Amino acid sequence: MLGNFSYKNATKLYFGDDSLKYLNDELPKYGKTVQLIYGGGSVKRNGIYDAVVDILKSNGKNIVEDGGVMPNPTADKLREGVQIARENKVDLLLAMGGGSCCDYAKAVSVSVNCDDDPWEKYYIRFEEPDCELIPVACILTMAGTGSEMNAGSVITNHDQKLKIGHVFGEEVMPKFSILNPKFTMSLPKRQMVAGIYDIFNHICEQYFSGEDDNTSDYIAEALMKSVIHSSLIAVENPEDYEARSNIMWTATWALNTLIACGKETDWMVHMLGQAVGAITDATHGMTLAAVSLPYYKMIMPYGLPKFVRFATEVWGVDPNGKTDEQIACDGLAAMEAWMKQIGVTMNITDLGADESMIEAIADATIILDGGYKQLTRDDVVTVLKASL
Amino acid sequence: MLGNFSYKNATKLYFGDDSLKYLNDELPKYGKTVQLIYGGGSVKRNGIYDAVVDILKSNGKNIVEDGGVMPNPTADKLREGVQIARENKVDLLLAMGGGSCCDYAKAVSVSVNCDDDPWEKYYIRFEEPDCELIPVACILTMAGTGSEMNAGSVITNHDQKLKIGHVFGEEVMPKFSILNPKFTMSLPKRQMVAGIYDIFNHICEQYFSGEDDNTSDYIAEALMKSVIHSSLIAVENPEDYEARSNIMWTATWALNTLIACGKETDWMVHMLGQAVGAITDATHGMTLAAVSLPYYKMIMPYGLPKFVRFATEVWGVDPNGKTDEQIACDGLAAMEAWMKQIGVTMNITDLGADESMIEAIADATIILDGGYKQLTRDDVVTVLKASL
Repeated sequence: MLGNFSYKNATKLYFGDDSLKYLNDELPKYGKTVQLIYGGGSVKRNGIYDAVVDILKSNGKNIVEDGGVMPNPTADKLREGVQIARENKVDLLLAMGGGSCCDYAKAVSVSVNCDDDPWEKYYIRFEEPDCELIPVACILTMAGTGSEMNAGSVITNHDQKLKIGHVFGEEVMPKFSILNPKFTMSLPKRQMVAGIYDIFNHICEQYFSGEDDNTSDYIAEALMKSVIHSSLIAVENPEDYEARSNIMWTATWALNTLIACGKETDWMVHMLGQAVGAITDATHGMTLAAVSLPYYKMIMPYGLPKFVRFATEVWGVDPNGKTDEQIACDGLAAMEAWMKQIGVTMNITDLGADESMIEAIADATIILDGGYKQLTRDDVVTVLKASL
Repeated sequence: MLGNFSYKNATKLYFGDDSLKYLNDELPKYGKTVQLIYGGGSVKRNGIYDAVVDILKSNGKNIVEDGGVMPNPTADKLREGVQIARENKVDLLLAMGGGSCCDYAKAVSVSVNCDDDPWEKYYIRFEEPDCELIPVACILTMAGTGSEMNAGSVITNHDQKLKIGHVFGEEVMPKFSILNPKFTMSLPKRQMVAGIYDIFNHICEQYFSGEDDNTSDYIAEALMKSVIHSSLIAVENPEDYEARSNIMWTATWALNTLIACGKETDWMVHMLGQAVGAITDATHGMTLAAVSLPYYKMIMPYGLPKFVRFATEVWGVDPNGKTDEQIACDGLAAMEAWMKQIGVTMNITDLGADESMIEAIADATIILDGGYKQLTRDDVVTVLKASL
């Protein structure tokens, strides 16, 4: 059944190979000083940085540089970004990159006018913002996280060995996001594939919950089928604009709250993956891939009807003459074959983890209760060992 | 291929059997005078009117009555509503009813501060609003039109025998809408079924266009499958909350611009159906149903791959051993069987049309060019005659 819920998502999206020009339409709505947030410099190599700076300058903006955002943005970097924003009284936080930059921009947004330490306030105590926000906008160069149209923000604290996400309220969502599929084409293939698995898992986390079928489940299946279809084209030819554009658009709708409407959600693969990430600093999408199958095999008996539906509707498994368990197992086998075909990392050993880290990863794993089985700490250890 | 597009939809939705209470959260954001828009009085019989008035009064609002909005709101009624809004300097247009009331509220919104005649300006000359808008909100009592989360507004002019829709910009969308599936349960079954077909056809109008498959097509198929599934439950038991809630939620997403993103769209069934409605004043959803199959049979050869996909993905047609034409025909046959099962009107004769009206209906049909076949006026007559 569709439970009760509210929905609002006011992010304006500009999508397409000409979308950067609409930055000219948006900039006049904001003040003069723009904090330009980006990562390790790939945007400088591929020309996106120069193109954006040109538009900012032609709109008379003061640019405050804030580069060097890491793939897993840290609490220390967040404090630095907040300081930059305060010292320069910035009017707009413009993230140029993937989900890391956008997540980081949101974390800065809620922290600039707040006296508390942002890591403690938002990622440990999970408080909500009670201060004026700085508007966030995003120029996306990697498809995967959905951060361009949601209020999620994941920050890592290496000292504390924690990687934690906070989903803020709708007021923290980007005001606008520019989605140009061509900007994602300069990514290394491994990053593209990690993003594709991130998308797929976002959908799974919302799909594998609840006992009833509802419209959200149908939409979830549609998004899964679309990303599976396009991923197989994109791994063969990363320059295929049609595939890359569908992947980008699927990523946005996989995690902008729509398919969670009226549902419980799971998110344990993310909790496990983020704990792996906190210990190994591995790529987010790959950490999810590495723990997914052991986790889904463990919970399958507790949500069998949905795993049967997943098998037949998403993977086209023929149910004739099979038990429900066989159908469900065939679905996970099809998913495993697809994962290997696109080339995701299938175990945490390949991400730098080993048996000696299992306890630390288990310690860093937050256990949630929305999925088909409430895990114990022993279950977490079992999944992690099966993921080695 | 996903073409270039922009997307923004900022309507806040409250969904569920407790959603009316959130009117208390929204009302303080608006001024003191509320124009309460409703239809023929069913909201008075089923208690919704009293519940809403109580909330308005407890929030200190002045209520300006604007009842009597007809199923096909007229240009004359629109002029009357504009006059009411002007004389009372209203701050919020609160529509309580189905798509007719919400469409009408949007038409009033764009016209209050405009000197031109609204019918001429918006529905004949298709101009855009260049004046201050009055905010619109909706308490939905019928699922179908999607008007609760879009900027569309259809108005009928009986003198001119025209029924014309204008899709305004995102600023005309309702600020908030309250969607309580229980409010739809007091509808006569025929109205429920007409709404279900309206939903289905909205999806078809966006699905049957373009040569390439993309994420929007996958989502469209998901919405079709969900509404088909729930419709069969709801016609057996209109009190089934799960089915009615899924139908309501599907209606919203079938026509809030999402599944048109990056696509051409068709809308010829709506043009034909609206022309039938302009001449007969028949229920909107039924006019669409009555002309759909003759239209789709005519265009099928021009969009055969999509009709094949429709057959296999939406209706589960087994393609083995069949030509593409056979598969596509089997899909339309499955659709026809479903239409008869839920009980929509299958021809325009049953809506009060006869052969003598065909020329007048054809005259009132606006021919669009986004579909698989650009119709001629002779084609329109052929479809209408086949619909008798």
